[in-house]
Amino acid sequence: MGPWGKRDSMIIHQAEPYNAETSRAALAGHMLTPLDVFYGRNHGPIPEIDPGSWRLTVDGLVRNQLELSLADLQARYPHRTLTATLQCAGNRRAGLMEIRDIPGEAPWGPGATSTAQWAGVSLADVLETAAVEPAAGHVAFAAPDMALDAEPPQTFGSSIGLRKALAGEVLLAWAMNGEQLPAAHGAPVRVVVPGYIGARSVKWLQRITVQEQPSENYFQAVAYRLLPPGADPDSAGPGAGLALGAIAVNADILRPDGSTVLPAGPTEIAGYAFAGDDRGIARVDVSADNGASWIQAELYESDGPWAWQLWRTVLDLPPGESLITARAWDTAAAVQPESAAELWNPKGYVNNSWARMRVCLR
Amino acid sequence: MGPWGKRDSMIIHQAEPYNAETSRAALAGHMLTPLDVFYGRNHGPIPEIDPGSWRLTVDGLVRNQLELSLADLQARYPHRTLTATLQCAGNRRAGLMEIRDIPGEAPWGPGATSTAQWAGVSLADVLETAAVEPAAGHVAFAAPDMALDAEPPQTFGSSIGLRKALAGEVLLAWAMNGEQLPAAHGAPVRVVVPGYIGARSVKWLQRITVQEQPSENYFQAVAYRLLPPGADPDSAGPGAGLALGAIAVNADILRPDGSTVLPAGPTEIAGYAFAGDDRGIARVDVSADNGASWIQAELYESDGPWAWQLWRTVLDLPPGESLITARAWDTAAAVQPESAAELWNPKGYVNNSWARMRVCLR
Repeated sequence: MGPWGKRDSMIIHQAEPYNAETSRAALAGHMLTPLDVFYGRNHGPIPEIDPGSWRLTVDGLVRNQLELSLADLQARYPHRTLTATLQCAGNRRAGLMEIRDIPGEAPWGPGATSTAQWAGVSLADVLETAAVEPAAGHVAFAAPDMALDAEPPQTFGSSIGLRKALAGEVLLAWAMNGEQLPAAHGAPVRVVVPGYIGARSVKWLQRITVQEQPSENYFQAVAYRLLPPGADPDSAGPGAGLALGAIAVNADILRPDGSTVLPAGPTEIAGYAFAGDDRGIARVDVSADNGASWIQAELYESDGPWAWQLWRTVLDLPPGESLITARAWDTAAAVQPESAAELWNPKGYVNNSWARMRVCLR
Repeated sequence: MGPWGKRDSMIIHQAEPYNAETSRAALAGHMLTPLDVFYGRNHGPIPEIDPGSWRLTVDGLVRNQLELSLADLQARYPHRTLTATLQCAGNRRAGLMEIRDIPGEAPWGPGATSTAQWAGVSLADVLETAAVEPAAGHVAFAAPDMALDAEPPQTFGSSIGLRKALAGEVLLAWAMNGEQLPAAHGAPVRVVVPGYIGARSVKWLQRITVQEQPSENYFQAVAYRLLPPGADPDSAGPGAGLALGAIAVNADILRPDGSTVLPAGPTEIAGYAFAGDDRGIARVDVSADNGASWIQAELYESDGPWAWQLWRTVLDLPPGESLITARAWDTAAAVQPESAAELWNPKGYVNNSWARMRVCLR
């Protein structure tokens, strides 16, 4: 058994670099995803970093350049703990690939998302001691993991706007679910940008650079961008389309997971819903007739504004095949779009169409 | 001619209380909507308040209760100017009423929205001098306009969450497009909550109360709430459904406006798009074949994060009837849903389905 533990709870899309999503069964009903089944999305090999010699540089448009050890970070700033869901921009891409193939991209199902309780310090507190200059507009993160799929090959990086960076909820985290952050999830310190696509939460953080413009790293300037359906991603170039950040309202069904034939009758339907940034989940609708009629699912108790919303309901299902549909509404009254066909895009990001699950009952 | 000026640019839904939307022609191509055609949504008669005797009370969970004259407000706090779009939660309701009637509600078209440059002080600055107590969660606004459609009849009020209230962009405004705020738009001082439904931007502001819970005013607790399609709004009671706040991505077509037969050939298609809170507009798609294919519209220069996004493109249209469709994507990659049928709700709020315009060409 490798560092990932229970491999039967993971769907492994790629062994090296390691890319694996959590099974529906392992996600269902748990506010926090156990470390050994938390999804992993990597563009390069997982670095092993000695926490004792690790240093974090804070530079760019700051009055005070900083170089911080892990001990400095832990001693100088107040500790913050929050529950946050991470979600890959490619989560549920398989639904787009059913419409039209997306060569070279992994067919992620609904498990490229997981939730943990993170502990660390607030990026805003660190930036306060660095004293951000007035010209600052973005905060870039750099890491040592070499991404061979970048053009040209380069280490991974991202950036977020200054407003988000100063909002308080962005963490530099060294712990996950009360345990020391594992190497696979970014030890000794990773960024956690609650409500944004996972790619902005840079693992194995080494450098924070305050700058006027967004990062020119491949994964900010070229990849993780929503392009129009007709665009050619290979020739689109830096800056084309929308750089993904805050996450649109999304949901999927985790129970039943379609793996077994269930007895007909009252059947528990359960899943997750999530909306990024300041939006929460207001309502989850479930339908047994493909959206002709809906009932409202029960929402579990929330674990704060940055955590997904678990939900459940019970439908009385007849023998034979049933199609279960679910859709979530966020607190801005945005609802998931009905059809994945309308959402197809060349890199296969942000499939937030209605969740559908075919189940067989006896 | 009344205080509204060019009445032919307004579509008047109700004379008393005054409810009127701006025509497509008057909105098209203007970043700022002229004062005399800025939409008006009122639940009671427009109060005439003497600015010299006006006082603003700030109370509730604050260490320092304040009573401020207009001169105090203007002298004690830094002046702030920003361009913000206001949009009624019922904007584009007519599209929902085509699906199923919504008795007692006005059939607003796409003109229950307008944009102005507002000047005033930041609510955050006022709250800083009031010193908000730790138990605070919401900031309530109260005004003197008596709403006879409330149950029981009461003056208008609303509230917003503390995080939004402290974010800096919420203004207590006394000027609009460089002119003194007109009585019809809330003189001497109104709230402007950028990115939220217009109902939260309370006109004729008299009292700001910091409190633990949202306002119990009818327009916060009962009206302006998104209910499931099957709910009975008359028996839903306080707290049912989603209290509308931040605005979901929306757009409509302003040119052509369907009022005249145009010559066939290259035809300008233009409109607005808007997404509330921290979201901007990333892309606007336009289709001449009901969504089978889309082209990307040109986006006008932005007037900041709280202003709508104007857009235009040119389509080569044949003689006869054409159906033009438009849809916007926000910076969280949320897109407008295709069908108004999926969005129908008992009070007719938040119709953000694709914009459609039938045009006739010769």
